[in-house]
Amino acid sequence: MPAVDKLLLEEALQDSPQTRSLLSVFEEDAGTLTDYTNQLLQAMQRVYGAQNEMCLATQQLSKQLLAYEKQNFALGKGDEEVISTLHYFSKVVDELNVLHTELARQLADTMVLPVIQFREKDLTEVSTLKDLFGLASNEHDLSMAKYSRLPKKKENGKMKTEVGKEVAAARRKQHLSSLQYYCALNALQYRKRMAMMEPMIGFAHGQINFFKKGAEIFSRSMDGFLSSVADMVQR
Amino acid sequence: MPAVDKLLLEEALQDSPQTRSLLSVFEEDAGTLTDYTNQLLQAMQRVYGAQNEMCLATQQLSKQLLAYEKQNFALGKGDEEVISTLHYFSKVVDELNVLHTELARQLADTMVLPVIQFREKDLTEVSTLKDLFGLASNEHDLSMAKYSRLPKKKENGKMKTEVGKEVAAARRKQHLSSLQYYCALNALQYRKRMAMMEPMIGFAHGQINFFKKGAEIFSRSMDGFLSSVADMVQR
Repeated sequence: MPAVDKLLLEEALQDSPQTRSLLSVFEEDAGTLTDYTNQLLQAMQRVYGAQNEMCLATQQLSKQLLAYEKQNFALGKGDEEVISTLHYFSKVVDELNVLHTELARQLADTMVLPVIQFREKDLTEVSTLKDLFGLASNEHDLSMAKYSRLPKKKENGKMKTEVGKEVAAARRKQHLSSLQYYCALNALQYRKRMAMMEPMIGFAHGQINFFKKGAEIFSRSMDGFLSSVADMVQR
Repeated sequence: MPAVDKLLLEEALQDSPQTRSLLSVFEEDAGTLTDYTNQLLQAMQRVYGAQNEMCLATQQLSKQLLAYEKQNFALGKGDEEVISTLHYFSKVVDELNVLHTELARQLADTMVLPVIQFREKDLTEVSTLKDLFGLASNEHDLSMAKYSRLPKKKENGKMKTEVGKEVAAARRKQHLSSLQYYCALNALQYRKRMAMMEPMIGFAHGQINFFKKGAEIFSRSMDGFLSSVADMVQR
């Protein structure tokens, strides 16, 4: 593990083998981070998906409880009690649904979205700049080769000057793209910690809020209701 | 809505048109209850499915958080803090997973299972006894028709006695199957209230327990941890 924490921009122009070697370490790290981020995002999207499905499932259950009243049972004797109890349970499930919906929204906004943004912005930027840097390096190599293949004769002076300009332009372009690429790789190292922890902070805050509100709703008053329903059922 | 709450067993032998008409009301009610129970079960199984998926999803997330350490990042500077924080979050997700798993088990045992049992035992019993009663009624009708088609001549006395025995046997069989069928239909009316409310009592108890334990785990101690992580990220 090299004891460096960034690529030095002043090394970019010289483009030495040492700098290239250090660059490859940063590139490897970015590759590992991209793979890990994709797996993490997949796991988080699964949690979000389950949370979302819970919203839909509780919504359906609440509707189904209300639907008892509309069944037109041929024998409706004693149904008033069942209907009013199922109405109450439907309201309970609705309140639970509100909590689940809020948690799903929080997980989407504070857990999944930051990871997507990190991937789309930071990781994709690094990968785009890597491609551009590769193209500029190729162009520079080609113009250098062209220059070295020029005949050594004096009458080619004009051509030499022109190709020399081409080489200089290609080097400027490569230098510029390497500066941008180094900056993005350095920024990625800086963003890495935050990108890994921010979504889990969002996750934890969402859960804390969910359990706090849930414990308030499902409190003693409901315990009382439940035992009276249980009594009723046993009669 | 007829003001009766059960089929009288003493009416079963006479099998009058009035009794048959009342029977059809009980049958219609049982049909409606079967349809409603199937829909309710479907809604409850969806809730259970979502809860179960949440168990699997939190399990995967916890593993993914631990996997950060094993990525062999080429640049590991400053990773100790990230690793230890993700370990902590993984433990939090594990604790949450325990709660989700317990809730899933409770929903299976106290919400879904009672509805399945009500369907498999009570509703299926009524439907089986209905079929048996139908078969016995047909047999009885056939033996009655056979008896009425017998020639009126005196010399058929022996045959008459035999077919008469057949009719009596068929009537006993029909009577017995009607008694069983009436009993099952009466029992269904008695079980109906309980069958509708019991699973929701199970559901509510499961949720109360879940939120109570969750609120204990996600308490102030975690708030403190989260703000220290947030500080760390901002540094």
